[in-house]
Amino acid sequence: MSLVLDPAAQDLLFREARTANTFTDEPVTEEQVQAIYDLVKYGPTAFNQTPLRIVLVRSAEARERLAPLMAEGNRAKTAAAPLVAILAADNEFHEELPGLFPHFPQAKDAFFAERPVRERSAGLNAALQAAYFIVGVRAAGLAAGPMTGFDFPGVQKEFLDDDHTPLMIVNIGKPGEDASFPRSPRLAYDEVITTV
Amino acid sequence: MSLVLDPAAQDLLFREARTANTFTDEPVTEEQVQAIYDLVKYGPTAFNQTPLRIVLVRSAEARERLAPLMAEGNRAKTAAAPLVAILAADNEFHEELPGLFPHFPQAKDAFFAERPVRERSAGLNAALQAAYFIVGVRAAGLAAGPMTGFDFPGVQKEFLDDDHTPLMIVNIGKPGEDASFPRSPRLAYDEVITTV
Repeated sequence: MSLVLDPAAQDLLFREARTANTFTDEPVTEEQVQAIYDLVKYGPTAFNQTPLRIVLVRSAEARERLAPLMAEGNRAKTAAAPLVAILAADNEFHEELPGLFPHFPQAKDAFFAERPVRERSAGLNAALQAAYFIVGVRAAGLAAGPMTGFDFPGVQKEFLDDDHTPLMIVNIGKPGEDASFPRSPRLAYDEVITTV
Repeated sequence: MSLVLDPAAQDLLFREARTANTFTDEPVTEEQVQAIYDLVKYGPTAFNQTPLRIVLVRSAEARERLAPLMAEGNRAKTAAAPLVAILAADNEFHEELPGLFPHFPQAKDAFFAERPVRERSAGLNAALQAAYFIVGVRAAGLAAGPMTGFDFPGVQKEFLDDDHTPLMIVNIGKPGEDASFPRSPRLAYDEVITTV
C-alpha cells in the first residue's frame, strides 16, 4: 500500500462514505459542527483567504423559507434532514487578509483590489473548503448530501447578501433507510491522468 | 470529542499537514499517484461528473516548457519539486455521464447540453476534486504545494486544449528544509458560521 492513512480512515472518508438522500432523526449538534469546523478550517486556500461562509438552517421558520427555493427533487430530503447548511463564498474576504496572511499583508491591495478578481478567487477557494467540509462531516461519522439544485439568486436574497455567493447546500445527518444509490462507476486512472 | 476520525488521521490530513514550498529529492512514484487517485476518485461530485483531469509533469522537457509560465515566485519551487501536477476541468465531461451516472443517463442532455452550463459545473466540481486530491496527497504521507500563480492561457495552450480549463498547479513531494511558513491564523467559528 502506498498510502499511510489508516484503512479505517480511508473507508470513513472516501471508500465507504456515501452521499445520503435520507436521514435518521438523530440531531446534529452544535458541538459536532464546531468539531468539524475546528478540523477543516486548516485546509489550504490561496493566501489563506478561507472565503467559505456557512449558514446553518435550524429553525422551522428558516426551513419554511428555504423549502420553496429548492429544486423539487431536493425538497423532501432537505425538509427531513437533521441539519441543512448553506455554503457560500465571501467576495469581500480581502478585508480579513491582513490578519489571515500576516507574511504579506499587502496581498489585500496588491492582488485583490478588484471585485471580479475576488469573485473568481473566492469561488475557487470556497469550493476547496466546501470539499474539506464534506470530508469533515464524514470525519464526524455523519453523511453529507451536497446539492446544487436550488434557486441561487433566491437563496442569496433570502439568506445571504450581495457580497456572498451561494455555492451549494448540504444536508447533514446519520444516513436513514435506502439512503444512497448504488455506487456509480469511476473513471479509470488512465482516463483522468496523463504524464508528460 | 465529536469526531470519530482517528486523531492521527486528523493530524495527517489537516492539523499537522502544511503547504510545502521546499521538498527533498525523494521521488513521487507512479504507484503513489495511483494509490492517491484510487482513494480520492470516490469523493462526491454533482451527477458523479468527476470532471477533474490531471497532467503529471515528469520529463525535463515538459518542466522546461512549464517554468516560464509560472509566476516568478513559484518558479524555483516548481523546478525543484519531485512531481508537478496540472489540475484541470474537463468542460466536455458530459460525454462520460451516461456511464458515470447510470441512474439517470438523460442528465447529459437534460442538464448539460449548453457549454456555459458545463463550464460552470465543471469548474465547481473539479475544484471539489482538487481539494480531495490535496487531501489524498497528504494521505500518502506527502505534502502538496497548490498554486494559482501562473499564466492560465499559456498553460492551457501548452499542456491542455480548448476543452480543458486549468484550475491550479500542485507541487508534490516530501517536505524539505524550512518547507512552510508558520501556521497562519484561522477565522473563529462565529466569524464563519451563523445559525438561522
